[in-house]
Amino acid sequence: MKIDVLTLFPEMFDGVFGASILGKAREKGIVSLEAINFRAYSTNKHNTVDDYPYGGGGGMVLKPEPVFAAVEALKHEEGFRPRVILMCPQGEPFTQRKAEELASERHLVLICGHYEGYDERIREHLVTEELSIGDYVLTGGELPAMVVIDSVVRLLPGVLGNESSAVTDSYSTGLLEHPHYTRPAEFRGWPVPDALISGHHGNIEAWRREQSLLRTLRRRPDLLETAELTDKEKKWLDAMKRETAEKSPDS
Amino acid sequence: MKIDVLTLFPEMFDGVFGASILGKAREKGIVSLEAINFRAYSTNKHNTVDDYPYGGGGGMVLKPEPVFAAVEALKHEEGFRPRVILMCPQGEPFTQRKAEELASERHLVLICGHYEGYDERIREHLVTEELSIGDYVLTGGELPAMVVIDSVVRLLPGVLGNESSAVTDSYSTGLLEHPHYTRPAEFRGWPVPDALISGHHGNIEAWRREQSLLRTLRRRPDLLETAELTDKEKKWLDAMKRETAEKSPDS
Repeated sequence: MKIDVLTLFPEMFDGVFGASILGKAREKGIVSLEAINFRAYSTNKHNTVDDYPYGGGGGMVLKPEPVFAAVEALKHEEGFRPRVILMCPQGEPFTQRKAEELASERHLVLICGHYEGYDERIREHLVTEELSIGDYVLTGGELPAMVVIDSVVRLLPGVLGNESSAVTDSYSTGLLEHPHYTRPAEFRGWPVPDALISGHHGNIEAWRREQSLLRTLRRRPDLLETAELTDKEKKWLDAMKRETAEKSPDS
Repeated sequence: MKIDVLTLFPEMFDGVFGASILGKAREKGIVSLEAINFRAYSTNKHNTVDDYPYGGGGGMVLKPEPVFAAVEALKHEEGFRPRVILMCPQGEPFTQRKAEELASERHLVLICGHYEGYDERIREHLVTEELSIGDYVLTGGELPAMVVIDSVVRLLPGVLGNESSAVTDSYSTGLLEHPHYTRPAEFRGWPVPDALISGHHGNIEAWRREQSLLRTLRRRPDLLETAELTDKEKKWLDAMKRETAEKSPDS
């Protein structure tokens, strides 16, 4: 897979593209990652990429010409049209399902604005989609682009070992993860739960599933609506909900 | 404000802490940012920070000792207890409201796991809260920590100029932003809307508000439930909803 990021701050990507999983995926040749400064595609003598908004108001707006030119230079290089994604707060909320969808593509282009808005013609005539990673305000699209890249690349075949893949499987149940414990068996007087030390596989699985259900009920009850649950679990959760409603919540 | 990040990959933060808004906020002395490798607080001879999970299963679990020791070294340094935030998928969803709350603090500590889960005793006895930036799987807590830091630091007094602050104000209406346009007035045959070129302030504001409402209706109708709307706007939106229900959606 080839991923190109158009940004005014390519140096922000150095540390992230080189480290950990992304760095290894690059070394293995599974993904090519490049951060391109689209200021290089400005056609005016001061190399400006933004201008004042029509209709007035605060903030500068990214001009269409350099962004169109930068994307088209990439398209020419590849000979086919990539997915062109605008990182912006008005975009479709990014989800794991979207990451899986993007992981099957051959070429992604991510466009990052900074401070400013985008000229609307970029939205209407250049990009194939717009993504937002959450309802909070950031100074630019660079961190959102890194988030999308990380979540997509880790899904590519050969990137993760088997051990880490297991973590994904557990996420795919639609519930929050159960608690984990490792050595020491007692730390500052706080012991590991007996169920985990018992060595009884059935008891361990039952404890983990129950903890996972409880944690999801307490922290993210919205996830229970789409999670895969047995009839017995649904009844048990209903009983827990009634109990919780009677007492003060414990999370 | 002082922000310390505990991570096994401190080099991931170099590019982000040095560039753009965060770099300027550091230069101005408004915020101190440090990425600390908590492997330095490991007490065993191989400097390991993780171990196999009790009860079996894939994935390694971060041991409690190095993380407790790293946080306590910071506390001692400062002489008071900071907010200690665990970045994890099971955490409270991060929002702009949370960013505003954290921006009033003096010292934040963000703990980033990587691949592995955390020993539950870190959750129960060390951290003051857990945050998740969205429902997608990432390889570690580093990118989420950068997202939280960026959204918090840009709110600190003196970090943003007046122009950029205006962008926040528009966000605070609870609606998606209206389209922006800048020069050229016509690009590849696509003109800027007449309303914006009219120079009539009232018409411009009316067009922007209408576009903002329409975009929110089409893309994020969930936001309309909490947005501040006039009675006239509510009626207009209801009419638009009926119209949309009759036609195929246009976004």
